[in-house]
Amino acid sequence: MKAIEPIPETMRAAVLHAYDGSPDSLRLESRPVPKPDRGQVLVKITHAPINPSDLMFLKGYYGVRKPLPVVPGWEGCGRVVASGDDWMSRWLLGKRVACASPNKTDGTWAQYMLTSANRCLPLKESVDDEQGAMLIVNPLTAWALVDIARKRRVRAFVQTAAASALGKMILRLSQHFRLDAIHIVRREEQVALLRQMGATHVLNSQADQFEKTLRTLCEQLNARLVFEAVSGMTSAQVLNAMPWGSTLILYGALSESACMIDPRALIFEGKRVEGFWLADWLGKRSVLQQIRLGQQIQPLVPTLLRSEVHAKVPLEQLHEALQHYAQNMTAGKWLISPNL
Amino acid sequence: MKAIEPIPETMRAAVLHAYDGSPDSLRLESRPVPKPDRGQVLVKITHAPINPSDLMFLKGYYGVRKPLPVVPGWEGCGRVVASGDDWMSRWLLGKRVACASPNKTDGTWAQYMLTSANRCLPLKESVDDEQGAMLIVNPLTAWALVDIARKRRVRAFVQTAAASALGKMILRLSQHFRLDAIHIVRREEQVALLRQMGATHVLNSQADQFEKTLRTLCEQLNARLVFEAVSGMTSAQVLNAMPWGSTLILYGALSESACMIDPRALIFEGKRVEGFWLADWLGKRSVLQQIRLGQQIQPLVPTLLRSEVHAKVPLEQLHEALQHYAQNMTAGKWLISPNL
Repeated sequence: MKAIEPIPETMRAAVLHAYDGSPDSLRLESRPVPKPDRGQVLVKITHAPINPSDLMFLKGYYGVRKPLPVVPGWEGCGRVVASGDDWMSRWLLGKRVACASPNKTDGTWAQYMLTSANRCLPLKESVDDEQGAMLIVNPLTAWALVDIARKRRVRAFVQTAAASALGKMILRLSQHFRLDAIHIVRREEQVALLRQMGATHVLNSQADQFEKTLRTLCEQLNARLVFEAVSGMTSAQVLNAMPWGSTLILYGALSESACMIDPRALIFEGKRVEGFWLADWLGKRSVLQQIRLGQQIQPLVPTLLRSEVHAKVPLEQLHEALQHYAQNMTAGKWLISPNL
Repeated sequence: MKAIEPIPETMRAAVLHAYDGSPDSLRLESRPVPKPDRGQVLVKITHAPINPSDLMFLKGYYGVRKPLPVVPGWEGCGRVVASGDDWMSRWLLGKRVACASPNKTDGTWAQYMLTSANRCLPLKESVDDEQGAMLIVNPLTAWALVDIARKRRVRAFVQTAAASALGKMILRLSQHFRLDAIHIVRREEQVALLRQMGATHVLNSQADQFEKTLRTLCEQLNARLVFEAVSGMTSAQVLNAMPWGSTLILYGALSESACMIDPRALIFEGKRVEGFWLADWLGKRSVLQQIRLGQQIQPLVPTLLRSEVHAKVPLEQLHEALQHYAQNMTAGKWLISPNL
């Protein structure tokens, strides 16, 4: 192991003890600081966001359940302060990185995180710590989804939860790549917000005639692909309004309910339903491809792929942050800053 | 028009007046006998079955709604007694055929049906009138589904509603093509029945530990494809038990409820959901390919693709037949014989 500064024996960390979503199961504790082995680095965390995937994880609803007790937090940024004895880890030593948590062990809601060198992306100077903390989950997902739309050569697509941080990135990328997009939100003020961002087609799913308007618009624009993040009845409603042969790609389940699909849409209208998970999508790419991707999207982070920050809080205010974020996700991100 | 026998002016027919599933909306009436134009033939119906797709059609739940009032009945068999002035229709004149109803006009539950020549398959001598009346919907669907399994090069698949007429054909075809199959039924006597037919893996979805057993078996056989005909919770239950990357193909909705899918199956487990409709599948084939297919499956009709007949009744007993069939579909088919 090599280090660029003295590493303490223990650290403060948020530790999850049960996948029940109760605040009592997530406690602030002292944990030993782990030591990097070959292929690993120790990141001193500057900021780590709360994402919808973290909320799912806390409830045991995410695609991965780690052995308990465990530190949550899927992404963050910080400085690599210690590394294992291999070229890639050593190359990262001292660098400012965006980092993702390992699949089985502790995450970013702590003062330090041990992770694989290949789960770190060195940050360019143009990307500040705040945006760097949110570089992986949302920007890469937005990039991947719009990339899927482009690879499938669609000229138009639909997205739900369009006023989310991720939804806004998808909106800006669609403008960048000149793809027509229909953005579905749930409140009138979100319609205004997205229109201000230059969106042409914004529909409020709570409005009268929503399904009829969506049907007409999809037909006009020939939109046969929808990125859906709500699940439940929203999946059924949107897919029903779309033309013959449409595909629904589910990438979130904000409603936390089962995806409902009208059997007739599948049988008689040639429609289909798939899912998207960033971990899978990235897993199909080599480490070098992932690094190249990281370099490719960083110039877009200050503009197309920026996230709005609502507040930065120390670990001690994590519960408060979780509660506020869950109640109003569109207000902007809450960043945890464990070394504040 | 050419005819081989005198054609009456009027005929008896079952006529649907509303898509509400009420017995009062389906009445026995006298209708004019239509005259074939170019490309059309008039079939004197011998037998016509009641299929699940007919029950869906009566309730307006099927993929096609014809202008009312209309004669229901999607398939049947009979003799071509009159034809239009073109080579294909004339070629069919006098022949015994299996026939499918046109998409917009009257169907088979009448003494005569007018349909396109390309919706008729001349019957071989080895196929009797009863089996000929059920040649299209079930045998072709079973053939198409097993063909999909073979084209996707799966070694094993799962099917629900396996004790249905169609399910049994799928079972026999899987044995014929040496594909492993897991058959899901809902009653213990159906387990015994399918075992008698030589099925190795038969599961009762109402049994304790059903999901666990299904999970283990799918893993063992590497079954990643399911043909699902029930919809509702069955879709969720079966897809959840299947391995990573499995595909559900919905071809029926016997439960008449929305297809429920766990969002996590789609997002985190790479699973997907599609639909199958015979009309679509056939529509992708030329008339010649369809005729060849008809010739190909007819030798299998007395064995692998046979349907059991429960009763043959005149048009006057249609209501009774509909009621009994809906209550117990696995008892065998009810045939309507309008010229009895």
